[in-house]
Amino acid sequence: MRTVTKDNITEAFLGYMGDDVNPRLREVLGSLVTHLHAFAKEVNLTHAEWEKGIEFVEKAGEISDEERHEFVLLSDVMGLSSLVDMINSKPEGTSSSVLGPFHISGAPPLEVGGDMKDRFEGPVCLAEGIVKDTNGNPIEGATVDIWQTAPNGLYSSQDPDQDTYSFHGLQTTGADGRYAFTTVKPVEYTVPSDGPVGDILRACGRHPWRPSHLHFVVKADGFRSLVTEVFPEDDPYLDQDTVFGVREDLVMQYQHMPAGSFPEGFALSGKVDEAFIKVDFDLVLVRE
Amino acid sequence: MRTVTKDNITEAFLGYMGDDVNPRLREVLGSLVTHLHAFAKEVNLTHAEWEKGIEFVEKAGEISDEERHEFVLLSDVMGLSSLVDMINSKPEGTSSSVLGPFHISGAPPLEVGGDMKDRFEGPVCLAEGIVKDTNGNPIEGATVDIWQTAPNGLYSSQDPDQDTYSFHGLQTTGADGRYAFTTVKPVEYTVPSDGPVGDILRACGRHPWRPSHLHFVVKADGFRSLVTEVFPEDDPYLDQDTVFGVREDLVMQYQHMPAGSFPEGFALSGKVDEAFIKVDFDLVLVRE
Repeated sequence: MRTVTKDNITEAFLGYMGDDVNPRLREVLGSLVTHLHAFAKEVNLTHAEWEKGIEFVEKAGEISDEERHEFVLLSDVMGLSSLVDMINSKPEGTSSSVLGPFHISGAPPLEVGGDMKDRFEGPVCLAEGIVKDTNGNPIEGATVDIWQTAPNGLYSSQDPDQDTYSFHGLQTTGADGRYAFTTVKPVEYTVPSDGPVGDILRACGRHPWRPSHLHFVVKADGFRSLVTEVFPEDDPYLDQDTVFGVREDLVMQYQHMPAGSFPEGFALSGKVDEAFIKVDFDLVLVRE
Repeated sequence: MRTVTKDNITEAFLGYMGDDVNPRLREVLGSLVTHLHAFAKEVNLTHAEWEKGIEFVEKAGEISDEERHEFVLLSDVMGLSSLVDMINSKPEGTSSSVLGPFHISGAPPLEVGGDMKDRFEGPVCLAEGIVKDTNGNPIEGATVDIWQTAPNGLYSSQDPDQDTYSFHGLQTTGADGRYAFTTVKPVEYTVPSDGPVGDILRACGRHPWRPSHLHFVVKADGFRSLVTEVFPEDDPYLDQDTVFGVREDLVMQYQHMPAGSFPEGFALSGKVDEAFIKVDFDLVLVRE
């Protein structure tokens, strides 16, 4: 293969792989590089553009650390994360939606009906639902990892004024499959736009907004894990989520509840006599 | 676009771009993301595979710094760098070949006929040629940025025992267009395989070897810059360069010269009476 050319370099790449390479690796990497080469040829990529691309990924690497995941964000705004979610979603269960770069592991236990709102100001929101299988049977012992932004639109890892696990909680369902918690109404917010991904958004004339949402990772023995988000139907960014996360079945309605109707089974620090909103959203898992 | 699906997400991505986006950015990024989506759908990319990909680029970011360019290396071993070289080469000039991750700017001036070998042991090699235009006319005032590994197969930036600019020199041609220098015979070497790119090579059953070569970046007013390498025809890795850099017109022959024939016009520190090898290779630039 001394005479590598534009026309045979993809074949040369595939030919370099050994005979006993993992077949799935051969398939995935072979497809990726075939598309990468096709892209470069399709647009006649210049050296200057290649250099810009290298500079971009190097910058993304530089800004990344334990808490800042610029490559996840890149995948999100390019629609790759959502595409992977959709490829792997089963229509009979709740749709997957982007994990995003702000999930952190080790969230503290939150009892069913527990309070995530804590000291934070904002409209009180009660969320509950049943974790169930595709036949409607509640799943006992499912873990529901919940997280969202504070009322200022920042996740705890972005905000020095929050504790590490503010607005993060891990709930385990009982025999009734129920999850439930008190929080503040989620707000729309911008993805981080002070790095190279922000530069791309600006160059593309795109805004960095996401509609407000609650994040869930739901796991139960014998079921496929579910990573998802739920969105209120009246959010102004519902139709233009910058990370393409909204699916029809993930849109919910807030019930507006009058003052004095705060129900039993929910905790709340501070006064409990004001009006609040409530969301009921069941999470359907598919058997493995 | 609330109902983003596998089938319309590429269209949604393209539709998010503003009306006054730079048309070339729209073309390049549109093609890149279209291929990225097509790849994910073609292989039904799983979440676990997506996570491996994210982990890979994060690791590549972590290992990168001013002197270690893991993303350039990734582009090299995937054949993207060579493909960009070939897309942008003009058949009437010398072929381009990979810049690689070891070029450093600021190389010290090296007079025509100057000595890059310095204190290093190894077979003496004299290299010379004419920088010329496609009509064969020599180009005066061309700069030839030259670099190679030391006899241990390491570039200066990889090797604490070398000075910053060991085996790096910047030559400027006179009216005769001639470049010329004394060095040691280049050796085959391995690309860095202690990082994530090395993990890919191993997983693919690929070796990390490159055939021996001399690197050149040639620049002259009114001409397209040329980034290239030249390779000896007897190198064992000529047909299996791990970065796909070899082109037919970049292969040269060593002339084996007897002791006592060391020519005028070349400098050499130390003894000049032993046998040496010589390479003549002209570098042809294309007008802009």
